[in-house]
Amino acid sequence: MAVVVMKFGGTSVADVERIRNVARHVKREVDAGNKVAVVVSAMSGTTNQLVAWVRDANPLYDAREYDAVVASGEQITAGLLAIVLQKMGLKARSWQGWQIPIETSDAHGSARITKVDGEAIRRHLDAGEVAVITGFQGIEPKAQRLATLGRGGSDTSAVAVAVALRADVCDIYTDVDGVYTTDPRIVPKAQRLPKISYEEMLEMASLGSKVLQTRSVELAMLYRVRVRVLSSFVPPEKMSPVVVDRLENIGTIVTDEDEIVEQQVVSGIAYAKDEAKITILKVADKPGVAARIFGPLADANINVDMIVQNVAPDGKSTDMTFTVQATELPRALEVLKAAEKDIGLFDVQSSADVAKISVIGVGMRSHAGVAAQMFKALADKGINILAISTSEIKISVLIDAAYAELAVRTLHSIYGLDAA
Amino acid sequence: MAVVVMKFGGTSVADVERIRNVARHVKREVDAGNKVAVVVSAMSGTTNQLVAWVRDANPLYDAREYDAVVASGEQITAGLLAIVLQKMGLKARSWQGWQIPIETSDAHGSARITKVDGEAIRRHLDAGEVAVITGFQGIEPKAQRLATLGRGGSDTSAVAVAVALRADVCDIYTDVDGVYTTDPRIVPKAQRLPKISYEEMLEMASLGSKVLQTRSVELAMLYRVRVRVLSSFVPPEKMSPVVVDRLENIGTIVTDEDEIVEQQVVSGIAYAKDEAKITILKVADKPGVAARIFGPLADANINVDMIVQNVAPDGKSTDMTFTVQATELPRALEVLKAAEKDIGLFDVQSSADVAKISVIGVGMRSHAGVAAQMFKALADKGINILAISTSEIKISVLIDAAYAELAVRTLHSIYGLDAA
Repeated sequence: MAVVVMKFGGTSVADVERIRNVARHVKREVDAGNKVAVVVSAMSGTTNQLVAWVRDANPLYDAREYDAVVASGEQITAGLLAIVLQKMGLKARSWQGWQIPIETSDAHGSARITKVDGEAIRRHLDAGEVAVITGFQGIEPKAQRLATLGRGGSDTSAVAVAVALRADVCDIYTDVDGVYTTDPRIVPKAQRLPKISYEEMLEMASLGSKVLQTRSVELAMLYRVRVRVLSSFVPPEKMSPVVVDRLENIGTIVTDEDEIVEQQVVSGIAYAKDEAKITILKVADKPGVAARIFGPLADANINVDMIVQNVAPDGKSTDMTFTVQATELPRALEVLKAAEKDIGLFDVQSSADVAKISVIGVGMRSHAGVAAQMFKALADKGINILAISTSEIKISVLIDAAYAELAVRTLHSIYGLDAA
Repeated sequence: MAVVVMKFGGTSVADVERIRNVARHVKREVDAGNKVAVVVSAMSGTTNQLVAWVRDANPLYDAREYDAVVASGEQITAGLLAIVLQKMGLKARSWQGWQIPIETSDAHGSARITKVDGEAIRRHLDAGEVAVITGFQGIEPKAQRLATLGRGGSDTSAVAVAVALRADVCDIYTDVDGVYTTDPRIVPKAQRLPKISYEEMLEMASLGSKVLQTRSVELAMLYRVRVRVLSSFVPPEKMSPVVVDRLENIGTIVTDEDEIVEQQVVSGIAYAKDEAKITILKVADKPGVAARIFGPLADANINVDMIVQNVAPDGKSTDMTFTVQATELPRALEVLKAAEKDIGLFDVQSSADVAKISVIGVGMRSHAGVAAQMFKALADKGINILAISTSEIKISVLIDAAYAELAVRTLHSIYGLDAA
């Protein structure tokens, strides 16, 4: 008998029919004797409609009121799922974040969960009742006003609830059946990973593989919550209920590195096509120039990712290349233009036709030559590398977007990730 | 300077554009120095959609979950209106029923308000902030779960808030500009009543004139809250702001009888076409037969309105005629059939082609002959009366539905209500 947190996203609860499907997943667990807390998102489309109304009301809206409006989406789903579960003969009730309470910071619209009181929920679980909990939201305890966590926050809600309940597993149901070595739409031979470490998942999440929200993985890593990624679209009856020591039979478990016995050197290839490259040419090569470029960008809340600096052949000026989100490109160029007086005269080139390809694996820590292998493979295909950045468990390169698929397929193959 | 509660129904807040119109009504009051609490309904259509989802999830739903789902409608409107008011430069915040709190009974789906704590709201009003409050809902204090008041409950919310704030007036904005002597679609010469007593309004409300919810009028009468009925569709700038001793300039004030100086004998003619007549023929005329007929109907929660009993010519059996809501007719007939063994053999006739016409006026108390005048006028037009019921300030007759408009027009004229 296990304590299980199950989380269902917007497409899994898109209408009452899909909610009935979710209820059958829940019933499977209850019938097996597990204690179940379910965390739900808003029905897909609902949040977009609510946000559109808020923006129409005032593009510069009060984030506290935005939260009051947008939080209604999950409240609808939670109530409906509780009703469907009751119809199936289960004991169930809905819980809104403030009723538990799930306490948050006062950063309305992108609040952080500060505390989850598991007492009341636990008591109801012990009485055989399913707890259906609104994801994405909580209450700011000082002003007692609703706060939302920002897009994708329901994953984080689920992990936080799992921590509070000391759950055996936090099952995140999505529209894919696990985490893959890369995007199967690009590489048909991509394989589902039965296990992945928190660290690798974090790199995957932040590098464009949108299966889990980054913050939820950080929280899971901090509290050592075992998270599984599963598909809600598999017929509920075809899946076996949670048994604590047999979690790896299905989906992908995100867990401690130590629990992964046969660790590959490289676990996956991620790519992101939503980056843009900016190159600043012939800036005077003197102390403080980087600060004068990146300070104004930071002030404007523009995230800079990869940064490469080259000394120009004349030895007096320097070229600086970096990437930003493609959607931020026009704003970034404006900010740089406004800062020209401060930076000194420079030429600028920019392009959104770039892609970031990353090779990820905790095995890199103990294996040399992974980067060299990558650079050689790309060179063999005639793919030019525009920039490089690395971490302990990841190597990313920026390339021309036209070569993105070729690069992903090539790397997937040379690191031995192709399915037989 | 007055404390004003303003209530806006679903059609008045149907979309963001209409919400902007509501905000201009609010701004007018604030600019005049009044302290304003606004009570809002869900955007029209929203509640119906939510109810449809709940019914789809389970026709026999848990009323507590129904409330959790349906309460989201007003929460959306309240947040949006607060945002629009802020855009216009006003200080404003939304309040959900549980945040105030508005406490209710545990009769989920049709709860009664038991207590409104005006402290927090009052403090915010004193600080120059507009309070935007969700109508139709509150919190059941024991289980701390959301409860809704049932259809039209936002009127009651508004009056309850007005009581808690000791407001000078509770302005109910609807899609008509006041209470009329009768339905202007039937009688073009119908006149807006500048004032009407609580008692008359109660009869109007319960007799099919759907301007105000009955319970809100009862509450206003109990606490002597002056309620006004106004149109939100009049351009906000064309209305003057609330001045306490000049409330009668616009709309209809519902107030104490004593405040109405020139009282007409008859204030209005109401009609209801949604009744059905059931006649039970030749029931044994013995003690307890009425209880055996109406007991099962009451048990099935079917409201019986007018009741007429005639002794049959043979002196041994009796005929019983009564009315129910037309929508309840099939169920009522089923209930009667099931009770046939208990009631004894009988014949039954039923018809939904009936209308109830009512003449209402507190002046009747001191004027004899109102009923006689009514019966004569109807007889002169050849309209047959099927049943009669009376109260101190009202006479209702049941007639063939085909004659409803003729009857209303005739009575409106003979009691001197036609506009010059």
